[in-house]
Amino acid sequence: MLTQQPVAASLLERFRSVRQATMDFASRLTPEDMMVQSCAEASPVKWHLAHTSWFFETFVLSDFVAQYKPFNPDFRWLFNSYYKALGEMPAKKLRASFSRPPLDEILAYRQHVDAGIAQLLEQTPEDEAMRRIVLGLEHEYQHLELAVTDVKNAFFTNPLHPAYRLESPTEHEERISPPLEWLSYTPEVAGLAPGIVEIGVTPDPAALTSFAFDNETPRHKVYLEPFRLASRLVTCAEYLAFMEDSGYERPELWLSEGWDTMRDQGWTAPMYWRRDAEAKSGWSVFTLSGFRDLAELSETPVCHLSYFEADAFARWSGHRLPTEFEWEYVAARCHPAGNLLESGYLHPATASADLGQPQQLFGDVWEWTASPYTGYPGYKPLPGALGEYNGKFMSSQMILRGGSCATPQTHIRATYRNFFQPSIRWQFSGLRLAQDGPG
Amino acid sequence: MLTQQPVAASLLERFRSVRQATMDFASRLTPEDMMVQSCAEASPVKWHLAHTSWFFETFVLSDFVAQYKPFNPDFRWLFNSYYKALGEMPAKKLRASFSRPPLDEILAYRQHVDAGIAQLLEQTPEDEAMRRIVLGLEHEYQHLELAVTDVKNAFFTNPLHPAYRLESPTEHEERISPPLEWLSYTPEVAGLAPGIVEIGVTPDPAALTSFAFDNETPRHKVYLEPFRLASRLVTCAEYLAFMEDSGYERPELWLSEGWDTMRDQGWTAPMYWRRDAEAKSGWSVFTLSGFRDLAELSETPVCHLSYFEADAFARWSGHRLPTEFEWEYVAARCHPAGNLLESGYLHPATASADLGQPQQLFGDVWEWTASPYTGYPGYKPLPGALGEYNGKFMSSQMILRGGSCATPQTHIRATYRNFFQPSIRWQFSGLRLAQDGPG
Amino acid sequence: MLTQQPVAASLLERFRSVRQATMDFASRLTPEDMMVQSCAEASPVKWHLAHTSWFFETFVLSDFVAQYKPFNPDFRWLFNSYYKALGEMPAKKLRASFSRPPLDEILAYRQHVDAGIAQLLEQTPEDEAMRRIVLGLEHEYQHLELAVTDVKNAFFTNPLHPAYRLESPTEHEERISPPLEWLSYTPEVAGLAPGIVEIGVTPDPAALTSFAFDNETPRHKVYLEPFRLASRLVTCAEYLAFMEDSGYERPELWLSEGWDTMRDQGWTAPMYWRRDAEAKSGWSVFTLSGFRDLAELSETPVCHLSYFEADAFARWSGHRLPTEFEWEYVAARCHPAGNLLESGYLHPATASADLGQPQQLFGDVWEWTASPYTGYPGYKPLPGALGEYNGKFMSSQMILRGGSCATPQTHIRATYRNFFQPSIRWQFSGLRLAQDGPG
Amino acid sequence: MLTQQPVAASLLERFRSVRQATMDFASRLTPEDMMVQSCAEASPVKWHLAHTSWFFETFVLSDFVAQYKPFNPDFRWLFNSYYKALGEMPAKKLRASFSRPPLDEILAYRQHVDAGIAQLLEQTPEDEAMRRIVLGLEHEYQHLELAVTDVKNAFFTNPLHPAYRLESPTEHEERISPPLEWLSYTPEVAGLAPGIVEIGVTPDPAALTSFAFDNETPRHKVYLEPFRLASRLVTCAEYLAFMEDSGYERPELWLSEGWDTMRDQGWTAPMYWRRDAEAKSGWSVFTLSGFRDLAELSETPVCHLSYFEADAFARWSGHRLPTEFEWEYVAARCHPAGNLLESGYLHPATASADLGQPQQLFGDVWEWTASPYTGYPGYKPLPGALGEYNGKFMSSQMILRGGSCATPQTHIRATYRNFFQPSIRWQFSGLRLAQDGPG
Repeated sequence: MLTQQPVAASLLERFRSVRQATMDFASRLTPEDMMVQSCAEASPVKWHLAHTSWFFETFVLSDFVAQYKPFNPDFRWLFNSYYKALGEMPAKKLRASFSRPPLDEILAYRQHVDAGIAQLLEQTPEDEAMRRIVLGLEHEYQHLELAVTDVKNAFFTNPLHPAYRLESPTEHEERISPPLEWLSYTPEVAGLAPGIVEIGVTPDPAALTSFAFDNETPRHKVYLEPFRLASRLVTCAEYLAFMEDSGYERPELWLSEGWDTMRDQGWTAPMYWRRDAEAKSGWSVFTLSGFRDLAELSETPVCHLSYFEADAFARWSGHRLPTEFEWEYVAARCHPAGNLLESGYLHPATASADLGQPQQLFGDVWEWTASPYTGYPGYKPLPGALGEYNGKFMSSQMILRGGSCATPQTHIRATYRNFFQPSIRWQFSGLRLAQDGPG
Repeated sequence: MLTQQPVAASLLERFRSVRQATMDFASRLTPEDMMVQSCAEASPVKWHLAHTSWFFETFVLSDFVAQYKPFNPDFRWLFNSYYKALGEMPAKKLRASFSRPPLDEILAYRQHVDAGIAQLLEQTPEDEAMRRIVLGLEHEYQHLELAVTDVKNAFFTNPLHPAYRLESPTEHEERISPPLEWLSYTPEVAGLAPGIVEIGVTPDPAALTSFAFDNETPRHKVYLEPFRLASRLVTCAEYLAFMEDSGYERPELWLSEGWDTMRDQGWTAPMYWRRDAEAKSGWSVFTLSGFRDLAELSETPVCHLSYFEADAFARWSGHRLPTEFEWEYVAARCHPAGNLLESGYLHPATASADLGQPQQLFGDVWEWTASPYTGYPGYKPLPGALGEYNGKFMSSQMILRGGSCATPQTHIRATYRNFFQPSIRWQFSGLRLAQDGPG
Repeated sequence: MLTQQPVAASLLERFRSVRQATMDFASRLTPEDMMVQSCAEASPVKWHLAHTSWFFETFVLSDFVAQYKPFNPDFRWLFNSYYKALGEMPAKKLRASFSRPPLDEILAYRQHVDAGIAQLLEQTPEDEAMRRIVLGLEHEYQHLELAVTDVKNAFFTNPLHPAYRLESPTEHEERISPPLEWLSYTPEVAGLAPGIVEIGVTPDPAALTSFAFDNETPRHKVYLEPFRLASRLVTCAEYLAFMEDSGYERPELWLSEGWDTMRDQGWTAPMYWRRDAEAKSGWSVFTLSGFRDLAELSETPVCHLSYFEADAFARWSGHRLPTEFEWEYVAARCHPAGNLLESGYLHPATASADLGQPQQLFGDVWEWTASPYTGYPGYKPLPGALGEYNGKFMSSQMILRGGSCATPQTHIRATYRNFFQPSIRWQFSGLRLAQDGPG
Repeated sequence: MLTQQPVAASLLERFRSVRQATMDFASRLTPEDMMVQSCAEASPVKWHLAHTSWFFETFVLSDFVAQYKPFNPDFRWLFNSYYKALGEMPAKKLRASFSRPPLDEILAYRQHVDAGIAQLLEQTPEDEAMRRIVLGLEHEYQHLELAVTDVKNAFFTNPLHPAYRLESPTEHEERISPPLEWLSYTPEVAGLAPGIVEIGVTPDPAALTSFAFDNETPRHKVYLEPFRLASRLVTCAEYLAFMEDSGYERPELWLSEGWDTMRDQGWTAPMYWRRDAEAKSGWSVFTLSGFRDLAELSETPVCHLSYFEADAFARWSGHRLPTEFEWEYVAARCHPAGNLLESGYLHPATASADLGQPQQLFGDVWEWTASPYTGYPGYKPLPGALGEYNGKFMSSQMILRGGSCATPQTHIRATYRNFFQPSIRWQFSGLRLAQDGPG
């Protein structure tokens, strides 16, 4: 198995880099900040730090290190999130009570796990161990993104509304968003009948470092009619026009469940917007740099929408949301780059004027699609407890594609499927329009 | 437009027959029975009687009879169900408070509407009026089916558990269910590339009496891999084996949302089953003929399952639910007959031994499919208030196919799409297994 | 026991009269009306008809008629309200599902019970049987009053807002309410130290026909300081002044629990008031004769207040609510007459100008007092299941005194203690002001 | 005003001591511990530290220091608890989101306030300022007690169940509780008629340092019959006998609201008890020293009962709870000493064998009384915002008397009235029995 050695070495390097990214994000937070759990969707950052380490300990060290001695046997159940096959776990809402173990102990836990993984990788472990480490890194990235999202909510919930970062990169805000173009697509793939495309991934068991979640598999055929896709995301200014056209008061624009949810929750604008008589635009928008006047952000993509709002906006505009297959068909032909976590902006950015090309497919905001979350034909969850990672959530959720400004660069790809209940708004979620083709 | 005259005459005949079917069902109920609204899903039968008349008055008489004088102007909003484009309506839960107008007035309302429609049809109205009458009849049939379902729940909720009908047809219960066969399908349609099938209906605007709901349109292409479908429905005996194998206690068999729902609701068996020390089987099952020993019903299809239970059973069995496309592909090639409302049994019946053929596709129980409820590609709701009929419910629901023992015979067809939230159990809902092909 | 014969005869006469009063009230209702249960506090009238008969059957016929054969053994548990010592009973909210037994059977049940009691009384039963019959009649009167209250709610909940009676006695509405006088009291009772008064009743076991509930016993001493009591009830006009002075927006006027309840429930006026642009006063008030312009009722006592609203009004006015002891001290010295059920008005009436005397102590509206509901010193509940009648409700409720326009004349007395949670508004409940004396 | 100087000096000394007591308690906690808010009743310790300082700043420094400059103007609303007269405040449940301001800033706030008060007292301020400081110290003591209670809940909620203190004083646990004696009382006060006693306090406006809350005022007469009071509190062993006699399954022992609450909440034992197969007694009890075997605590007073449980136990025992007046009559004649916060035990302790004397009246556990919380006759809340301190909570709560092991010694007195909803268990709350006299 000599050939795997360079793979292990490069994996170790990547491991260190991903783990460091988490610590970098946390470095601006106090131990008290890391205790806050401000909504049902969120977890304390401290818990994220522990749970990501737990993942490596549980699925790698315990299984692949001979006579592995756990850092603290209680952590096995304490930091389990939802893997029922591993036994009972604390209810999610209790995570805010974990003042003990103290942060220092969690940091020691991280170091212990880091050392264990490093040692394992230095010995070039068997393939399955390396596959699990790769999975653990993708898992870590997901939690890093969740931590960004959760801190935003925590700081918004705090009545003082502190900023995660005081500076706010503004260069691109002076740009005007380019006009929306309709890009036409007539799906056709060499070797397949017209309209038949291939979606998803069938993993190569030999390729240790390529990665896809089980819910992206297997690669399979889908029939697509011609369609058109908007060249860029919907902006705040466009969404404001919907609001000003009584968008939140016209039931004919809404799904029935969406209307009821919106009324029950009292929504009249995207999450994190509030009326502000002192703002030039009349609205302030909370960002990780604190509240900003909407006037400064009007050309940036609208964000923190529920599926119901995205769907209502699309109906109001006379268009529709794309399906996840239309989206993937286009995205698979584009370079996966954009305003992602590494840009450091932590907020969606104005599109640039790159005419004739789809922009903002990757990064900025997760794009709600018209596709409910289901298993692909022939879908099989991973064996054992890891089979609970994705498959058990395949009901009553909608697919989002493309990542956001809180998603790490190397975590996103054209086949990646994110999923949330249609009422969820705490994510960096927005939309792109589509319509039937050929146009 | 002379050619339409026979159409109008035959439509009048059908109108009378459908309206009479509703009255026939109600004839065994007292005015007090017709007041009961025993769960959030249900409405009082009296309300069904009124609302179906309201539908004809609102969408036909008001629009197509010159200077139409409404029976009672208040009924316009009082008996509106959910058509927001027509204005405000009473909250659904208030329907149990409608002791006034009295049943006698509702019956007079029905007669008034019946006379109006008859008069209109005798004059051979314009095509759109006839199309609306056809829609109104399908609507009436849906409410007749709902009334059956709601009365079952009402009588179950009543602590005395009265029977809707005292006699209980039992001839078929002595049958043994035939062994489950796996029928193999390799989708192929003449003139289309292998795997591409056509699903749904594109209505012929000239054909007045053929009918499909807007959610069945347009006819469109779907790619299907080979698959196998069970020859018959899952039986009570088979479901009991799942229960006895700790089906309700093994999280790995359940969707996460299903597990939480099941635990919250305290489900340990299908709806209407209760432990009964005096029953031979240890279980009694409530039917429209009262409680029955499960021992007598064990070969009949299991019924009143949520999607979550159907899905968990399928996972336990090592198989899966079919998609709605697989189901329709098969059903479109079968005769739409079975144990439907007209059989009078009002309960699913044991399959017969018709080897090599799919059985029970139509009637007995609605079959949960693996397909979430979405609009077909190119879907357009009807214009105006009628556009609220189906489209606004396209979130967080799953498709059921095939009709049940409470569905009128002429109401069901291979393309018919029923839909409910995955937690719903008050419907006559069960399942049929599928697996990947070619077998 | 010859001496009891005239007692039994007169009791039979009273029995017939009370039972007839219930039937008289129900005679204006349809079987459908009697099915409605429109709020958590209410029961269907049909249930009231059955439960009051159940009370006589359970506590009299079953115990005192040799080899008594119940009308229907199922009724024993079906129509039990809350006597846990007698076994399980259906949940209160299920009462709206009792379409079976049909009303006709309930009426036959009443006749059966009436005949049984008549037969028993004709044989001059033992004293305890007669005591129970007397209790059953007070119980029947309580349910008659509840039925009036529940029908008002049912008809208000019905979107058509039907009237229980079409005529509306208005002679007294043209009266102007007399100015409020403050009547001064310095409690002093012959033979007792100054300030010591006696409250409640110690029943005479030999007197079969006098009656008090166990919660009115025993008679006991209470120390009272001098106080002043308002000569009449607070009127709608006075309450409107409180509303117009932002009474529902000033937290300093409210108990904390009251403020939270009022905000949660969205109260901005008494129950059954609604803004009405077409009313002269801008408000309509629902009565058992339908909606009325508040302008016509402004001099009548304000009604359908929660304790929290009564308390807030009193604080706003600079005064307070009386204690139940102050109230009883005064009422015990007055004649128990007023606008009670027999007046047929079914709504509180304007006070008359009887200067120097307390008015409206009996009838019109139940008067919220400042006294929580507790057992008197030495309180002992009745033995057995009847001990559940009153005692188990002695927490988190407030005392109301004096009866209302829905209370039967012979049911009310100075020592009578009614009790409800402070948030309850569906009762005919209002207030009278008090202040510390001697004035 | 020279005479006030020694008063001010001694007040300063007391101020320093009370403020230090709070810091002493907090000194064993980490900043993370001080973030936890584990139930609706609780607040984070960090918030307690801030709010108590806010109280002095708002009601003393802002009102009595010329041109006072607030430490941070935002704190004015941020750390307001429930004083609506001072404007809006954050919802209580948000307190767990206050990661900012950081603990360090809260500690600086405390020092700022401490310095301000010291400076003020050194200048011998006007009487009202001193009265407010005295009130602020009682307020601080209340929050110190709440902090103890809240930390217990926080550590219990934490799945690791950490201990606040590792050592656990056990000397007294080896004692056997003395047998319960019934002490007889025939209330009689010199100069008053037999049975009339005086309850509460009428404050002397000249006496700056004596203190009573407004709800203890004014002193007033109450009539009491002879009664008997148990010489000691009910023990865990006695409560276990109630449990083992099916106390939680017998509805006849419970108030109706108590039965429903107990069933809804799933209570089968006092709060903090859990079944433990490894404990000798079969039960473990959570204390501030961690879980303990009930076997070791069986002679100590039962604790963390709701009113409903205390009431049910009393009924089961054939006795009753005392009224708050009976309790005060006895306690006013005893020395206010006992197992209070300063003993450091932080758990109720076994009674000693001091025959013929009431024991444990002060400290150990708050004793539920049979008295609802109401204003005494003539009660007037303090003027202004401070009037919200007590009066607005006078509904649906019950009085507890005597303080607990978490109550500071100088905070408790015979007239002190604590109050909670009858369902509350997170307090150190237990009971003492009473019965009617003279015995």
